[in-house]
Amino acid sequence: MAYQKGTGKNVVIALGGNALGDTPAEQLELVKKTAIYIVDMIAEGINVVVSHGNGPQVGMINNAFAQSAAHDAKTPEMPFPECGALSQGYIGYHLSQAILGELKRRGIMRSTATVITQTVVYPEDPAFKNPTKPVGAFLTEAQAKAKMAETGLTYKEDAGRGWRLVVASPKPQRIVEFDAVKDLMDAGYIVIAAGGGGVPVMEHNDSYHGIPAVIDKDRSSAKIAADFHADMLVILTAVEKVAINFNKPNQQDLDRMTVAEARKYMEEGQFAPGSMLPKVQACVEYLEGYPKGTALITSLEKAAAGLRGETGTVIVRD
Amino acid sequence: MAYQKGTGKNVVIALGGNALGDTPAEQLELVKKTAIYIVDMIAEGINVVVSHGNGPQVGMINNAFAQSAAHDAKTPEMPFPECGALSQGYIGYHLSQAILGELKRRGIMRSTATVITQTVVYPEDPAFKNPTKPVGAFLTEAQAKAKMAETGLTYKEDAGRGWRLVVASPKPQRIVEFDAVKDLMDAGYIVIAAGGGGVPVMEHNDSYHGIPAVIDKDRSSAKIAADFHADMLVILTAVEKVAINFNKPNQQDLDRMTVAEARKYMEEGQFAPGSMLPKVQACVEYLEGYPKGTALITSLEKAAAGLRGETGTVIVRD
Repeated sequence: MAYQKGTGKNVVIALGGNALGDTPAEQLELVKKTAIYIVDMIAEGINVVVSHGNGPQVGMINNAFAQSAAHDAKTPEMPFPECGALSQGYIGYHLSQAILGELKRRGIMRSTATVITQTVVYPEDPAFKNPTKPVGAFLTEAQAKAKMAETGLTYKEDAGRGWRLVVASPKPQRIVEFDAVKDLMDAGYIVIAAGGGGVPVMEHNDSYHGIPAVIDKDRSSAKIAADFHADMLVILTAVEKVAINFNKPNQQDLDRMTVAEARKYMEEGQFAPGSMLPKVQACVEYLEGYPKGTALITSLEKAAAGLRGETGTVIVRD
Repeated sequence: MAYQKGTGKNVVIALGGNALGDTPAEQLELVKKTAIYIVDMIAEGINVVVSHGNGPQVGMINNAFAQSAAHDAKTPEMPFPECGALSQGYIGYHLSQAILGELKRRGIMRSTATVITQTVVYPEDPAFKNPTKPVGAFLTEAQAKAKMAETGLTYKEDAGRGWRLVVASPKPQRIVEFDAVKDLMDAGYIVIAAGGGGVPVMEHNDSYHGIPAVIDKDRSSAKIAADFHADMLVILTAVEKVAINFNKPNQQDLDRMTVAEARKYMEEGQFAPGSMLPKVQACVEYLEGYPKGTALITSLEKAAAGLRGETGTVIVRD
């Protein structure tokens, strides 16, 4: 082993979609800025696993194959689980390259490793009874109905823009590559893993197979953080602190909340579904799994300051 | 660490293109058969890094984006280095899943890890003076000439089928993720790495950037095997043994050759360029880097027997 482990905490960082761009050229530039903030955190001495979203990217990949297949019989369609694996290679390559460059520029003798990740979900997960996430290419009604008959999957009309595949967002139960991710982090690598929450798989006859679904990357990060008793889970988003009464005259930014307080606020409907709510929920899942941990929600730009306890919203068990 | 390292040799295995399929559905089935043969080798107790080709897959990905971009302004084209990273995620996911399934079915308590790999090439590599490998989408003459003017890259007419990007095949100088790959193998993982030879990158100002090129996966495998002093490099292909006077009445299958003999046969033109020649050359590069090593060229089906010394063509330094 050529690298030294950091002397600080073990931290799982979940990057928001604003850390990546929409096209390859955009992403290549944007990840360089993202890498500066991540290496600011690494410079604090932490050992780190970085996960990231993949919504726009997995959609772009699925759509490119669907469009190409429609015009060219030689191009196959790319199934949704495989699109997730493609997106992990694509984003992991850029992110890894950018972080490694930033480490080298600062003379930090550590390295990166991107691990393609599968995440086990359970067939009995209640999310499968009510798929809610539109993904991938826009189809005509006729195309969508043919696909439904062929595959048994759900397609729905999406706000006048066409018909799309609608999938469930089940709970991540286990990260297949968990041991490799932990061993690499323990050996001092900056590990990029669980991209897009991991490719969703089910286990059947001792074997995994991919299924069309989306897994919230914050929940997968929480699962990894809880399972290896990471000192901290850091969820990065567009705002510096979580707020209650958001966008109202009495908006209050929170420095700290307990799991009980977070639950109360969630019951009050303080956090927007599809936005802050799943992030707070992921923090609660992590603290249920590892009550000694500390969760932090803040912006990418403020992340290093947040690690030092200077800003962000901290969530603890009690 | 939850896994036990094998008690046997450290082996780098380079999988040929026949181990993968042309479409996602084909590949998903074919890798299950491939996994059986790989796990036959693992059952011999070896510690292993598996690399694989990506020619048809990287072409399919590049083409899908090009076709889609031509019909839909919202789809970007996917640059060639990024296509390599996408293909590593795609193939690594299937291969890793299939090998893991086969390990579990046999009760072998080991696990897999796919690492996205970059491979450093030098700008002064003579291959860049004469790009020879047509890759990616077929374009019209007008499209190709516009691309040439825009990018400075080389496009050539390809056997009446259209114009294609033509790139160099430079020598792999260094595997960026070498330490992670070695550490994972030493920790008992079946490591899938250097897919498609690795994404070709150049180093500039402490940072890597992708370039359009193809790296021979057998040469990248040889580089990994030499650098970590792997006991064996196993290159899998369509035939059980290397032959001289191939397809002639006096064809002679070889059980064993030295580097000096291999060089003599290469000078005689015994091995087909683009087929057996680069495989024998890769073995020679490995044995130049690690003279105590043993190289083996055989078929996927005979690989486990080859490991036991029962078949295949063995190449040694002296």
